[in-house]
Amino acid sequence: MERNPQTDLVHPGERVDDLQNGFYVIQNPEKFCFGMDAVLLSGFAKIRKNARVLDMGTGTGIIPILLKGRGKGEHLTGLEIQEECADMAARSVAYNSLESAIDIVCGDIKEAAGIFGAASFDVVTSNPPYMIGEHGLRNPYMAKAIARHEVLCTLEDVVSQASRVLKDRGHFFMVHRPFRLAEIFQVLMKYKLEPKRMQLVYPYIDREPNMVLIEACKGGNSRITVERPLIVYEKPGEYTKAILEIYGMV
Amino acid sequence: MERNPQTDLVHPGERVDDLQNGFYVIQNPEKFCFGMDAVLLSGFAKIRKNARVLDMGTGTGIIPILLKGRGKGEHLTGLEIQEECADMAARSVAYNSLESAIDIVCGDIKEAAGIFGAASFDVVTSNPPYMIGEHGLRNPYMAKAIARHEVLCTLEDVVSQASRVLKDRGHFFMVHRPFRLAEIFQVLMKYKLEPKRMQLVYPYIDREPNMVLIEACKGGNSRITVERPLIVYEKPGEYTKAILEIYGMV
Repeated sequence: MERNPQTDLVHPGERVDDLQNGFYVIQNPEKFCFGMDAVLLSGFAKIRKNARVLDMGTGTGIIPILLKGRGKGEHLTGLEIQEECADMAARSVAYNSLESAIDIVCGDIKEAAGIFGAASFDVVTSNPPYMIGEHGLRNPYMAKAIARHEVLCTLEDVVSQASRVLKDRGHFFMVHRPFRLAEIFQVLMKYKLEPKRMQLVYPYIDREPNMVLIEACKGGNSRITVERPLIVYEKPGEYTKAILEIYGMV
Repeated sequence: MERNPQTDLVHPGERVDDLQNGFYVIQNPEKFCFGMDAVLLSGFAKIRKNARVLDMGTGTGIIPILLKGRGKGEHLTGLEIQEECADMAARSVAYNSLESAIDIVCGDIKEAAGIFGAASFDVVTSNPPYMIGEHGLRNPYMAKAIARHEVLCTLEDVVSQASRVLKDRGHFFMVHRPFRLAEIFQVLMKYKLEPKRMQLVYPYIDREPNMVLIEACKGGNSRITVERPLIVYEKPGEYTKAILEIYGMV
């Protein structure tokens, strides 16, 4: 945790986290803080330097900021429905002087094609709410609930809008939970986003995976590459080399 | 390799392999020999003792024999289109004196529901041909080509017939290749076989998977369990403990 002189950008109850890539992110631990899923997605996504990128449900703006830190994409837009959250993300962008590279737009994923127009992006990323119906408890804090549960948008909303705003052969990158994998593939294919690459994230080598990273291509052909397993921990408290590399710590 | 007195069951060019579970299988190395995929599928499949089981495209009959060796299923039927192969499989059944538990039927997977009737099995297993179109070379020996390439039946033929011969809530177990995973899920769901469990088989911990084991349930709900990774080799030539356990070698 660090502070810099731009303290007017940071509101009471918020903190500034150093992303160790030259950039910072403002977060409010009472509401929602980014997790490893966002970091892994930013590492997994293959994005050309000159791409126009939309991050759907950007929350703190962590994904556009991490992508920029990796030199992925020329211009990035973060779409966030929660006003307070979008405001905080915009302040993070300003905090990093990234206003020319990253836009934060307050709006509804379900209206993305209306807001931005069809076929307007080369890449869409998303770390959407994972939970449906009875899976997991609704978070009593609404901001967290919206980020984690399909309160305001469903998987199909995200995918259908991603497909509409993507150009033909554009790429969609998403992190989600393995228990919804069959449904994810089905919805992607329904909207002509062909699954092309997938990586399962296993907390330990002998455990079930708890995250899945997926790349789909609009109008692609039917063939998917499943990547080597991404194991998080060597042993409790000790990250594997693969994770340390993604975090830029080796 | 071992022989027993029932030499009349073994034809020239064939050999008898000891499965290390009290049973043997007759194979013809010129034609087709079973691989690790059949062994892993027999380990992966959860089958009640009293279940009626159909193995579609049984080849040497290896899967019914391995399942019987594991006490899985009461009566098992192996369906094989190639007459010579079905004859060899039937001789393997006789060699093991399993005639009362295993039937080998020579017939076409595409006609399975016509042969056996709808809703006639609790479980269907299959190690179908993996390869389509230009993926992999057509095997110059026809028997091997039929076992490996979709010459005589497609994935959709296998899945659609499996769905028809299965009772409601019956289980389908299949081993296939990860590059077709999205298509596999799509076809399964098209025929109301909901993917419920999946395990990826990685040759080494840092390699892409080369097999996928899938369980689907007829009429099941949409939620899949992805199991821990199954790693084959600790290092070249040395199996992991998980593989040795499946082979019954520890």
